[in-house]
Amino acid sequence: MAGVRFQGVLVPAVTPFRSDQSIDIERWYRLCRSLLAQGADGLAIFGTTSEANSIGARQRMSAMDALIERGISPARLMPGIGACSIDEATELLRHAAGHNVGGVLMLPPFYYKGVSDEGLLRFVGSVISRAKSSARVYLYHIPPIAQVGFTLGLIERLTQEFPGIVVGLKDSSGDLNNTLAIVRHLPGFDVFCGSEVFLLDTLRAGGVGCITATGSANVDGIQAVCQAWRTDDAVRLQERATAVRKAVQQFPLVPAVKALLARANKDPAWEMVLPPLTSLPRDAEKRLHASLEAVSFSCRPMAASD
Amino acid sequence: MAGVRFQGVLVPAVTPFRSDQSIDIERWYRLCRSLLAQGADGLAIFGTTSEANSIGARQRMSAMDALIERGISPARLMPGIGACSIDEATELLRHAAGHNVGGVLMLPPFYYKGVSDEGLLRFVGSVISRAKSSARVYLYHIPPIAQVGFTLGLIERLTQEFPGIVVGLKDSSGDLNNTLAIVRHLPGFDVFCGSEVFLLDTLRAGGVGCITATGSANVDGIQAVCQAWRTDDAVRLQERATAVRKAVQQFPLVPAVKALLARANKDPAWEMVLPPLTSLPRDAEKRLHASLEAVSFSCRPMAASD
Repeated sequence: MAGVRFQGVLVPAVTPFRSDQSIDIERWYRLCRSLLAQGADGLAIFGTTSEANSIGARQRMSAMDALIERGISPARLMPGIGACSIDEATELLRHAAGHNVGGVLMLPPFYYKGVSDEGLLRFVGSVISRAKSSARVYLYHIPPIAQVGFTLGLIERLTQEFPGIVVGLKDSSGDLNNTLAIVRHLPGFDVFCGSEVFLLDTLRAGGVGCITATGSANVDGIQAVCQAWRTDDAVRLQERATAVRKAVQQFPLVPAVKALLARANKDPAWEMVLPPLTSLPRDAEKRLHASLEAVSFSCRPMAASD
Repeated sequence: MAGVRFQGVLVPAVTPFRSDQSIDIERWYRLCRSLLAQGADGLAIFGTTSEANSIGARQRMSAMDALIERGISPARLMPGIGACSIDEATELLRHAAGHNVGGVLMLPPFYYKGVSDEGLLRFVGSVISRAKSSARVYLYHIPPIAQVGFTLGLIERLTQEFPGIVVGLKDSSGDLNNTLAIVRHLPGFDVFCGSEVFLLDTLRAGGVGCITATGSANVDGIQAVCQAWRTDDAVRLQERATAVRKAVQQFPLVPAVKALLARANKDPAWEMVLPPLTSLPRDAEKRLHASLEAVSFSCRPMAASD
C-alpha cells in the first residue's frame, strides 16, 4: 500500500471538459499540480464536485492513467470509484489499486433506495474481493445526493470485516453530529468532514481533515485551518474559511467553483459542466463574485508552470 | 427503425445470475422466450426489475448480443439504457440501435438531484446526437427510485426537438393523474403505465399499455386486461390483475418476483439478486406465497423448450 495514510485537506478537483464533452487532460493536470503546490495534501479526483458520475468508467480510468503519466504521484490520489454496479466499481478499484494509489473513495450503490445495511455490506465486500485489492477504501457518505448512505452500525461492521482496508470515511451528510459520532465511536478510523465549515470541530474531536468541494478554489485558506488548529489563531482562520464557503454554497457548488477558476485564470473554458448540470447564468455569476468580494476573498490563479 | 411501435404489455424481465454474479444467459433466454410465448408484446430488458443498474454497461451489452444470437427478435426488445454519464448512455444507445431494437427505455441521469429541465434536455440531446441514433427512445419516469424525473414541460420539449425519436414514456410515478395528464396533453405520444394497477384507466384515456415488474410472473393475467379492455369483462380482469399485484408489492418487488419464479419452476437459482438488493427472507417468502394463495393465484412455470 502506498505511503502514509491521508490526513489534512484533500481536494475533489473539478474536472475541465472540452467542447466534445471529453476530459481536458492538460488543463486538469495543471489544476492538480497547482492544488498540490498551493497546499493540498491529496487529490480526491472523481468525486461529486469532479462530476465523476457524469463521466464513463472507461474515460475516468484512461484520464487517471494520463494524469499519473504526467507526473502526479499516485500516493497523493484518492480517486472516487463510485458506480451502481459491482462490475464497474470492481473495475475502478482494480485499476486504482494497480496504480498503488493512496486510497479510493467509495460511494454506496445509489440507484435503489431504502436498501438494507446487509445489502450494502455485500456490495462493498463483493467489490473488494472481486478486485482482489488491498488498497485503502474510504467510504463516501453523502446522503443529500446519493440518498443511500453508511450508518454507524454498517461502518463498524465494514471496519471489522475489512481491517486495514476500510480505514476511513468522508462525511458529507452536512450533519456535524454525525461526523463527531463516527469519530468518537471508532478510534483509529480516519474521518474527514465533507465541508471545511466543520473542519476545526472535526479536528478537535479527533478527525483527520476534510475533503471539500471548495478546495479547488480556496485550498490555502482551508489548509491554514489545518496547520493552525492547535493555536490561538484557529478560530479566526476557521471563521474566514467558513465565510468563503458560505458565500460560495449559496450557488450550485460545481458550476460556482468552476466560475471562480474561470475568472481567476481568465479562462472561460473552466465554466463548462457536463449535463445534467448547467453553468451559472451570468446574473448568478455576478452575485457569486459580489458575495466573495464582500468577504474580501478572491480565488488565486493556478500556480504557473515550472 | 424496427417494426411497428410498441403497445400492450411489455415485461421488464428479471435477470438470473450465476453465483459469480454474472448473468445466467441460458436461464435468461428461456425466460424471455417463455414470456413472449405466454403473451408479452415486448421485453423491456434491463429495467429496474432487471437490476440493470447493478450490472456493468459492458456486461449488459454482451448479454443482449447473446440473447439476440439465440433468437429473440430485436424488434421485440426495449432495452434500458440507464446510466448517469452521457458516455455510457451513448454507448448503450448506439449498441441497441445497432441491433435495430424496437426502442430503448431511457432513465434520466440519477446521481445529481434537483437538476434543471434544461440540464436533462441537454443530457438526452447529447446522448441521441453522440450515438447518431434514430432508434425510438421511451423516457423512463420513475421518481420514487431515480429521484430525478421528466416533467410534462420537459417531455413536450423533447418530443418537439426529437420528433419520431422520443416517442413515448413509461410512467412509474405511481400517480395515475400524472399518467393521464401526459396522455391528454400529448396526443400521439405513447404512454405506458408502470404498474398494471392503472392499466385499464390508462388504456381508456388513450395510453398504449403497461411495462410492469410483475409481468415476469403474471404476463397472461395482465395481457388479459389489454385484450378485453373494450369488453364487459374488463373490470373483472383488471380487479384480478390488481389483486395479484397488490399481494406481490407488499414485498420488495425484485426479490418477490424472483421468489415466485423460483417456486413455479422449482428452481432456487432464480432467487439470487445482486447486492445491494437481498433475497426475501424465508418468512417473508412464506407470507408472499400465502398472500397469493389468498387471491387464488399461482405463477405459471416457464413455457417448455421447443
